[in-house]
Amino acid sequence: MSEKHRKRFDQLCAHARETALLAAAESALEWDERTMMPTAAAEYRAEQLTLLAGMIHKRQTAPELGEWLAELAEGPLAADLHSPEGTTILQMKHDYERDVKLPQSLVEELTRTASLGQHIWEAARPKNDFAALRPVLEKLLDLKRAEAEAVGYPETPYDALLEDYEPGELTSNVQRVLAELREALVPLVAEIAESGREPDVSILARTYPLGAQEALSKRAAAAIGYEFHRGRLDVTAHPFCTELGPHDCRITTHYDEHFLSSSLFSTLHEAGHALYDQGLPAEWYGLPPGEAASLGIHESQSRMWENMVGRSLAFWRHFFPTAQSAFPDALGDVSLESFHFAINDVRPSLIRIEADEATYNLHILLRFELEQAMLAGDLPVADLPGAWNDKYEKYLSVRPPTDSDGVMQDIHWSEGAIGYFPTYALGNLYAAQFFEQANHDLGPLDEMFARGEFQPLREWLRTHIHAHGRCYSAAELVQKITGKPLSHDPLIAHLRAKLAPLYGLN
Amino acid sequence: MSEKHRKRFDQLCAHARETALLAAAESALEWDERTMMPTAAAEYRAEQLTLLAGMIHKRQTAPELGEWLAELAEGPLAADLHSPEGTTILQMKHDYERDVKLPQSLVEELTRTASLGQHIWEAARPKNDFAALRPVLEKLLDLKRAEAEAVGYPETPYDALLEDYEPGELTSNVQRVLAELREALVPLVAEIAESGREPDVSILARTYPLGAQEALSKRAAAAIGYEFHRGRLDVTAHPFCTELGPHDCRITTHYDEHFLSSSLFSTLHEAGHALYDQGLPAEWYGLPPGEAASLGIHESQSRMWENMVGRSLAFWRHFFPTAQSAFPDALGDVSLESFHFAINDVRPSLIRIEADEATYNLHILLRFELEQAMLAGDLPVADLPGAWNDKYEKYLSVRPPTDSDGVMQDIHWSEGAIGYFPTYALGNLYAAQFFEQANHDLGPLDEMFARGEFQPLREWLRTHIHAHGRCYSAAELVQKITGKPLSHDPLIAHLRAKLAPLYGLN
Repeated sequence: MSEKHRKRFDQLCAHARETALLAAAESALEWDERTMMPTAAAEYRAEQLTLLAGMIHKRQTAPELGEWLAELAEGPLAADLHSPEGTTILQMKHDYERDVKLPQSLVEELTRTASLGQHIWEAARPKNDFAALRPVLEKLLDLKRAEAEAVGYPETPYDALLEDYEPGELTSNVQRVLAELREALVPLVAEIAESGREPDVSILARTYPLGAQEALSKRAAAAIGYEFHRGRLDVTAHPFCTELGPHDCRITTHYDEHFLSSSLFSTLHEAGHALYDQGLPAEWYGLPPGEAASLGIHESQSRMWENMVGRSLAFWRHFFPTAQSAFPDALGDVSLESFHFAINDVRPSLIRIEADEATYNLHILLRFELEQAMLAGDLPVADLPGAWNDKYEKYLSVRPPTDSDGVMQDIHWSEGAIGYFPTYALGNLYAAQFFEQANHDLGPLDEMFARGEFQPLREWLRTHIHAHGRCYSAAELVQKITGKPLSHDPLIAHLRAKLAPLYGLN
Repeated sequence: MSEKHRKRFDQLCAHARETALLAAAESALEWDERTMMPTAAAEYRAEQLTLLAGMIHKRQTAPELGEWLAELAEGPLAADLHSPEGTTILQMKHDYERDVKLPQSLVEELTRTASLGQHIWEAARPKNDFAALRPVLEKLLDLKRAEAEAVGYPETPYDALLEDYEPGELTSNVQRVLAELREALVPLVAEIAESGREPDVSILARTYPLGAQEALSKRAAAAIGYEFHRGRLDVTAHPFCTELGPHDCRITTHYDEHFLSSSLFSTLHEAGHALYDQGLPAEWYGLPPGEAASLGIHESQSRMWENMVGRSLAFWRHFFPTAQSAFPDALGDVSLESFHFAINDVRPSLIRIEADEATYNLHILLRFELEQAMLAGDLPVADLPGAWNDKYEKYLSVRPPTDSDGVMQDIHWSEGAIGYFPTYALGNLYAAQFFEQANHDLGPLDEMFARGEFQPLREWLRTHIHAHGRCYSAAELVQKITGKPLSHDPLIAHLRAKLAPLYGLN
């Protein structure tokens, strides 16, 4: 290894680390905006964020960066694709080339239109006024098509958008696996509907004092291994997890005095995200080996802790007495089995973010199909509400009574986030496939959970996933860890194993 | 007015406003560090703050800025010294010229040594180890002497340091007024000591539940006019007030279950600072007309609300029933008069930050005298502890038993803050002189306070002080508002008027 390459590599890293300092400052300001900031400060904060975003973008597209990356990509440090050095060089080069292919005018137009779309959505949804949203959605689709053409794609323009969230993944592959999932999921949901059984969900809607909810949420997050000396839990409207530095990963939740699940499962979900971030190698913070492999992999961690752990009977064998002590009035007369059934209530519904573990994927599927059709020009935006309602009726047997609770329920498209939705379903699929493998490697996880032992799973995830950062793509990780490509089988097997006894299925 | 000057002026303002966006981001990160940040995040946060400070300094000393300012200072917009435009140009020019006179190497050495001094102080104070602190204090004094020589001064090197906190003020003038204050204060404190009376301060050390303290603190801050939709109140170790933007001024306090004054008066103090910031013209945020006139003027606002309002009998005529409802166990059997006497307990003590309204100024005086002697080379750092103890004995009749509670009680000198202390006493003097004038202009303020009316005083301060930003210096403001130069008389008169009835003085 020549001295010259090493020096250039160090220069590259120093540049990226300085950019990361600014990006982390941006994250801190955003966290503050969503948890702490007084209302009157919004306008100035937006100005600050715009300035920082511009400074970060300028650093990320600096011409000297392109020169260093081109030089390093030819050198010995890039020889091993999966080494931290090779990953740093090749992933940064990949990101850089994508960034510089986008004309500045297109970036600005997209930012402006996305911001506009967001505001229009906020005003239009309460008024059930899809017509008001239509023009900006059409504009955003045009811009996203232009973006795809500018950066290029292997097979279809949608690939270019998916790349932003799930690097290296192909639309055709996602289509295949999600179609298989649908084939297996629709009959399962139908079997459940026909079972004639349903849990008593009213027990979750009893009175759960907020202070006790907060204490229980903190206890649950700490139990699965969230490190509070490197983070904190606060309240927000739409829970999220964010990194403010290598040792500062904060989670948020919301409390509803008459719905326990609201805080508890969102805390477990965000803590699952946080375990990933807290498990990334801190010494590579701000560089690809210190970053998540993909949004889908990130979601796999949150979904695993929320659903595969947090909604398991084993978890509650351990945790239910704690919950009963926290809420003696609400849970004193409730059996472990009734509680477990209630938190695993499966029923088709209108709203994605309130959907259960099984039907959730159908909400994603239809969005994925619709956004592909729109991007390809096969579905005019004007026809979207009808197409949406038809698909809800077909996949979930419910027809939205309004566009507010139908096609306008999510903000994503109005912000230009097209190609994002499938990462939610991919997250569920990755989670199930990883969880199956962890169970195989570690022995019965259920027995550990019932004893309150979550460290073995957490360490397994740390070793096999977190520690690698972006050194492997999502697909490579799945193959490397499970020896198989991504499949819908583990998720269906997981759902069937849990739901069959509850609903008396075969 | 030529188009050219206006365009250049707009360019200047745009530059300064962008710098302010970064400076406000720095303030947000510092606020977070002191109120919210998890412990493990400290190191990374320090890196972020260093980067931002460097970026801000670079912008503030950019050569083009010097050229624009030189050009504008000769033009028509600078003709009126006290107009917002004239102030912007001339104050920015003043700051710029000072900044560029400091060699980069000296700035860096000072930053490094101040940071080192802070850490050494943190370790040395609990061990009562002044010897460990001595070398870094000597180094800091050398550097501050070099700073004074680099930037220049009208009469004495101390002027150059004072300038950082109290622009335009002269050491000789501060010496004069503080010497006069001492001459009047020492006998007053002696009279009180000889009065044989003292309040029952144990009532303040009863049990005051924290939740009720927080509610009362918020109520008190809101009562005097702190706008919570443009701020918030949080907990910290050493209370402070900070601006995160034109509509985001946050205050902090600390709660001690067995000492009510701790939270209540620190909240009123910080809310007093915040009323100033919330009263500055928002449209000039980040430019001199949107900045405070001086640290002393800032302190005058906090001290006025804390002491002249918050410790007045009239205030408690209005607020005591509220406090009694908040703490029925602790205050149910306490009379208004006993409470008022307890919160105005005057007695010489060792620790500045716990000192009462009268003796506080003596703590400042002796620090002011000692730091001048050290800077002039008349007092070697090695002799400082002895000199400190002698002065405490002389001015306050107490001799510190340890250096921890003596010369090492404050962090200021260890951080290189020399010239800062007098602003605390100046704040008290300005406060009393303004308050006397407000009383004269508005009629008896006491009667208003007793009715819970604080708006007249707040609006008077807004009109006469806040609205002007840095358009007048501290001395100019005092002269303009009261028609007289700064004097010790109003403060002595205020203290005597309040304390004479309590202690039975003549």
